Amino acid sequence: MSERESQLVLGIDPDPGALWPVGAEAADAPSPRGRAAQAVLAHCRALIDASAEACVAVKLQLARFEVLGTSGWSVLADVAEHARGRGLLVIADAKRGDIDVSAGAYASALLGGVDTPFGHLDGLGADLVTVNPLMGADAVEPFVRAARASGAGVLVLVRTSNPGAADFEDLELAAPPARVWERIAVLVDELGREGRGDSGLSDVGAVVGATLPEHLVRARELMGSATFLLPGVGAQGGRVEDLAPAFAPGPAGGLVTASRSIADAHRKSDAGPAGAARAEAERLRAAAWELSRRV
Amino acid sequence: MSERESQLVLGIDPDPGALWPVGAEAADAPSPRGRAAQAVLAHCRALIDASAEACVAVKLQLARFEVLGTSGWSVLADVAEHARGRGLLVIADAKRGDIDVSAGAYASALLGGVDTPFGHLDGLGADLVTVNPLMGADAVEPFVRAARASGAGVLVLVRTSNPGAADFEDLELAAPPARVWERIAVLVDELGREGRGDSGLSDVGAVVGATLPEHLVRARELMGSATFLLPGVGAQGGRVEDLAPAFAPGPAGGLVTASRSIADAHRKSDAGPAGAARAEAERLRAAAWELSRRV
Repeated sequence: MSERESQLVLGIDPDPGALWPVGAEAADAPSPRGRAAQAVLAHCRALIDASAEACVAVKLQLARFEVLGTSGWSVLADVAEHARGRGLLVIADAKRGDIDVSAGAYASALLGGVDTPFGHLDGLGADLVTVNPLMGADAVEPFVRAARASGAGVLVLVRTSNPGAADFEDLELAAPPARVWERIAVLVDELGREGRGDSGLSDVGAVVGATLPEHLVRARELMGSATFLLPGVGAQGGRVEDLAPAFAPGPAGGLVTASRSIADAHRKSDAGPAGAARAEAERLRAAAWELSRRV
Repeated sequence: MSERESQLVLGIDPDPGALWPVGAEAADAPSPRGRAAQAVLAHCRALIDASAEACVAVKLQLARFEVLGTSGWSVLADVAEHARGRGLLVIADAKRGDIDVSAGAYASALLGGVDTPFGHLDGLGADLVTVNPLMGADAVEPFVRAARASGAGVLVLVRTSNPGAADFEDLELAAPPARVWERIAVLVDELGREGRGDSGLSDVGAVVGATLPEHLVRARELMGSATFLLPGVGAQGGRVEDLAPAFAPGPAGGLVTASRSIADAHRKSDAGPAGAARAEAERLRAAAWELSRRV
């Protein structure tokens, strides 16, 4: 982060119906699935090439790759590899959560792989993976163990950026801390204690939406050493200027993620897709970095 | 269900380290991933062939396929197709949950596919898909819409069977209904109202663990027309005999799912894997069917 003076995460969320022209140009396979896979891959590579300099990581929305069926995982792995080649960390935005053995299998798939009687199965090699904690600590712990074994980290959904987040995450509890998401935050803090590095930050972070800045202060109180992944800037209405509490432990305390606002920047610009994406990424990078230095 | 006199769901959860011998016999590809994929596919087919007659559906644990990387989706689709060929419904145990556009992409992947500028991308064609509701109603609704469009259904995690379920699902709320999982149950009932069929059952069901039977009575009060998927029988300690409340709306009110207790039955038996699986599946089928007729 300090090398690149950036906390910006390029969210990669390729809608097959809204790809850059470079996508359609690359699509010549005989099957719809083959063409869609080619187009998504070309789009993602171009998006990364345009924005990489301003970013520290990509966040890959796994749903957009799963919809490619049998081609999905190879496109996902290719995009991850392309991002690594540009010096970017890879965040697998998987939001998986399941009972212990299943959580372990997901963690193997997304992180360092697994040894089997048939040999080692490589994982995606992600640096961070998002996890859904609804099913409890035993659904999260296998990810933390697997992440520690491979030098990676976990980002637990705590208070998400969507309107529906209020339905269950914000429910008021009979005993303090007062809300469901605050109780999840306590678990994040506990799980992260054994994974605190010299930076003061731990390997168990939290997804905290940028759309409701008032939650950030409280989230930071409850999770003093967690890195926050901050979705919701741009298309969902969040503003970089409101994210100061995320940076209380230092400039690495917050990862600002933007997807549509970068990929779709050309719709509000005279520049082409790549130029507009680069400019918007640089604008967000500079805003977040300046803010984090003032906190 | 009435044709087969069965509510039994064969849980397919293939651990590459614990496959039937037929798996290793099939594995001759040059790469570890290729061999693991061949072995998992052969194992799953044999397991289905052995147990199909006693079952109405398979439940595919997606984590075990995701860990196969680039081979995962094709093995998953092959297993689903094999199950359909044996007259079984297919439950995609995906536990996905994400913001609206991402939930829509997951639903397309798992259910009926999606139209794109590159042509129609086929989905997995599942009959039911499990969904994680932590992020709220707007994370579940895209699945309900997609399911209705393809004659399928949704199973929402309400009160799961794992020990950690107590951590957040059981949290006591400041206002009634008293617990987080009960609030989720209210959403399930609401979302299902427009999807109620002649049977009285709706197309939005609930995952309710068989491990805590006392919750079943309350769950049925809150979700009168939901089909319950009941995991936790066997290896996790749940007993078929305790599931009566699930069948209050009729024999189709509960789907009893068993994974390890069927696939691993040969470890406590003199029969081979197939024979032991068949016998255990038939035992569970008969127990559940008899119980449901008495309710």
